[in-house]
Amino acid sequence: MAFLDLIKKPTLLLDQQKCLTNINRMTAKAARHGLLFRPHFKTHQSRGIGSWFWEQGVRQITVSSLQMAKYFAEAGWQDITVAFPVNLREMDLINELAAQITLNVLVEDREVIQILGRSLKHSVGAFIKIDTGYHRTGIPVEQVAEIDSLVDELINQERVRFKGFLTHAGHTYQAHSREEILNIHRTSSEKLNLLKKRYLNQFPEIIVSVGDTPSCSIAEDFSLVDEIRPGNFVFYDVMQWKLGSCTLEDIAVALACPVVAKHPERKELVLYGGAVHLSKEFVHLPNGQKCYGLIVELTDHGWQILAELNPLIALSQEHGIARAEGDLFNKTKIGDLLGVLPVHSCLTANLMQDYFDFSGKFYDHLNASLSRIV
Amino acid sequence: MAFLDLIKKPTLLLDQQKCLTNINRMTAKAARHGLLFRPHFKTHQSRGIGSWFWEQGVRQITVSSLQMAKYFAEAGWQDITVAFPVNLREMDLINELAAQITLNVLVEDREVIQILGRSLKHSVGAFIKIDTGYHRTGIPVEQVAEIDSLVDELINQERVRFKGFLTHAGHTYQAHSREEILNIHRTSSEKLNLLKKRYLNQFPEIIVSVGDTPSCSIAEDFSLVDEIRPGNFVFYDVMQWKLGSCTLEDIAVALACPVVAKHPERKELVLYGGAVHLSKEFVHLPNGQKCYGLIVELTDHGWQILAELNPLIALSQEHGIARAEGDLFNKTKIGDLLGVLPVHSCLTANLMQDYFDFSGKFYDHLNASLSRIV
Repeated sequence: MAFLDLIKKPTLLLDQQKCLTNINRMTAKAARHGLLFRPHFKTHQSRGIGSWFWEQGVRQITVSSLQMAKYFAEAGWQDITVAFPVNLREMDLINELAAQITLNVLVEDREVIQILGRSLKHSVGAFIKIDTGYHRTGIPVEQVAEIDSLVDELINQERVRFKGFLTHAGHTYQAHSREEILNIHRTSSEKLNLLKKRYLNQFPEIIVSVGDTPSCSIAEDFSLVDEIRPGNFVFYDVMQWKLGSCTLEDIAVALACPVVAKHPERKELVLYGGAVHLSKEFVHLPNGQKCYGLIVELTDHGWQILAELNPLIALSQEHGIARAEGDLFNKTKIGDLLGVLPVHSCLTANLMQDYFDFSGKFYDHLNASLSRIV
Repeated sequence: MAFLDLIKKPTLLLDQQKCLTNINRMTAKAARHGLLFRPHFKTHQSRGIGSWFWEQGVRQITVSSLQMAKYFAEAGWQDITVAFPVNLREMDLINELAAQITLNVLVEDREVIQILGRSLKHSVGAFIKIDTGYHRTGIPVEQVAEIDSLVDELINQERVRFKGFLTHAGHTYQAHSREEILNIHRTSSEKLNLLKKRYLNQFPEIIVSVGDTPSCSIAEDFSLVDEIRPGNFVFYDVMQWKLGSCTLEDIAVALACPVVAKHPERKELVLYGGAVHLSKEFVHLPNGQKCYGLIVELTDHGWQILAELNPLIALSQEHGIARAEGDLFNKTKIGDLLGVLPVHSCLTANLMQDYFDFSGKFYDHLNASLSRIV
C-alpha cells in the first residue's frame, strides 16, 4: 500500500530533501561569510531534524524556551542560547541546565540581572537584548547610558559572562519588498556594530548576534555581525514566500488533508484541516485574497506546486475551505488527500506535534514528549 | 506555598465555579424550552469537564472529529454526534465506534451516502447538513430538490437511520449586534422548520438541530427547533464577550503568564505567553485596538476583571505584548504572574492541552492523551 493511502486524518508531511537543501544552503552561507551559525530550533522543535544540523557540523543552537533547551540538551546539544528574556520563575531549570551545558540567556533589566546573579549556582553567558526597531523587547539601541548600566551590572555578577548584544529584527516581517528587508538588515547591523565598538576594547570577546529568516535568506552582506540565528528557513512557509525569502518549491512541509465536501456553486473544497492543525495565521495574496495556506497536489514521493494559487480562504476549528481553480476542483473527489503549504510553519509544526516523511518515517516534536510541569 | 507560586510557565487556569455556572445555565435553558441538549465538547475536549455535564443529566454530546468521539466513548459517553462531514478515510474508526455507541454522522453528498451505506458494518444515525447562510458546508436550505435526493439516498441504506437536519449558523460570529444575532437565529430556525415540515409526515421522528453559542446564549425563542449543540459557552471568551453572548465575568479560563520584561516608554509588559499558548485569533476592541487577549489580575482563588481594558496587542511564538494602563503597569513587577482571558478559548485549550483549577487539580485534554495514528 502506498504511504499516502495510510493517511486518514490531517498529517504533517516533511520533504526530507527540501529540508536538507534549506539546511545546507544556510550552513554554507554562514561559512562563506565567516559567521557563527547558531540556528534557531523553535520552528522544527525536533531531535530528529536537529540531527541533520549536527551532521553539517553545527554545535551551537538557539531555542525560545527553557523547556525547549532541556529537550535539546537531553538530545545531546551542549551549547544553547535561550533567545527569550530570563523568566525568573524558572530559576531552578536555569540552574539545572547551567550545570550540564553551556547556557546563554537574554537580559534587558538591571534588577533581573541582580536576581540572576544572586540565584545562579553555575555559570551562564548573557546577551543584552537590543531593540533595533522591532519594538517587541530589548533596550532601544540609542539608549547608551542604559546599556552602559546593564553592562556594569552584568560584569558585577560572579557567575555571569557578558557575551555581547543580540537582536531580532522582526520588523522585516512587515516589509513590503526585498529592498526594505535589506535596508532593515543593514541599519540594524550598523547600529549593533557601533554598539559593539563602544565596548570592544574592554571586552574583546563580545559578539553581535542577529537572527530573522528574511534577512538571513536575502542579505549577502554580513560584515558587521558575528552570529546569525535564523530558524524558519528549515521549512520556510507561505509567509516567507510572500516576503521573498524563498520560492514555493523551497517549502519543506505540507499538511495532508482529506477532502470531505465539494461545493461547485462556490468552487470550494472543504478539507479536514483547520485552525487546530494550521493555526489562524494568514497572509494576503497579491490579489488581496486572505490566505490561510496554499493547496498543492500530493504524489507518492512529495508534492507538486500548482500553476495557479489555490488558497484556503477560511478556517474554523477542524474545517479548511479551499477556493479551487477549475482543473483542481473538477478532478478532486471527496475522500482524496490534498496538501496545504502552511502560512506559518512554526505554528503548524507546534500544533501537529510530529512529522512523517514519504517513507513513513516519523520525527517527533517537543510537544509530543513534553512532561506536564506546573 | 500558594498554588500560584508553583506556576513557572504559561498555564491554563480553570475557574470551576464559573464553568459550572455556565453549564448549569445552559442546561436549565434547554430544559426550560423543552429542547434536546447535546452540548458540543470540542471546546473543553476534557473527560473531567465532560463529567460535570454528566452530573447535570446530559447523556448526548457533540464532537468535531472521530478521534474526539473515540476519546469520549472511552470515557463512557454512549450517544455522540460527530458534527463534521463524514471523512471516508476513517471508515474503520466509524465502524469501530458504531459497534460500541449510538453514533450520528453528517452527510451532504449523494456519493458519500452510497459509500457509507456499502461500508457500514453497524448502524449509524445521519443528519443532512444544511447551510442556512454561513456558507461553510452543507446543502443550501433552498435547494429542496437536492435535499429530496439526499433523503431518498439515505433511506435506501440499510444501516443508516435518517435523523433530520442539522445546521451551524456560524455567521452569527460576524454579527455586529445582539439584534443581528437574533435575526440570524430566527431566520435560520424558520428555514429549518419549513424543511422539517416537508418531511415530517413521512419521517415523524426527524429533528432539527442548531448549534452556535451566540444564538443559544442570547435567544429566548427556540420554538422552531428541537436540539441545541452549543459548545463554547462552557468557557466563553473575549470573542463571545464582544458579540454579547457573555460578560467578562462569565469567562471561565485564563492563561497564567509570567511577566518577563517592562517597557515604560511604551507602557508595555512583555509576557511569557504567545501564539503557541493563546493562538493568533484576535478581535478589535471598541476603540479599534487589535486584541489577542485581555489582562486580568490573578488572586489565590481566581481572578479579578480590571476596570480598564488592558489588551495583548501583539503575539509572537512565545511572547505576548500587553498594553497596560498606569496602575497595572506601575504595580506589576518582572517575575509576577498575570492572567489573560483568551480571545478564542477553544483554540487556547487545544494548544495548552490541560487545565488546573485553583486547588491545583488537573483536568486532561484530548491532545494530552492522543495516540499517534497516521
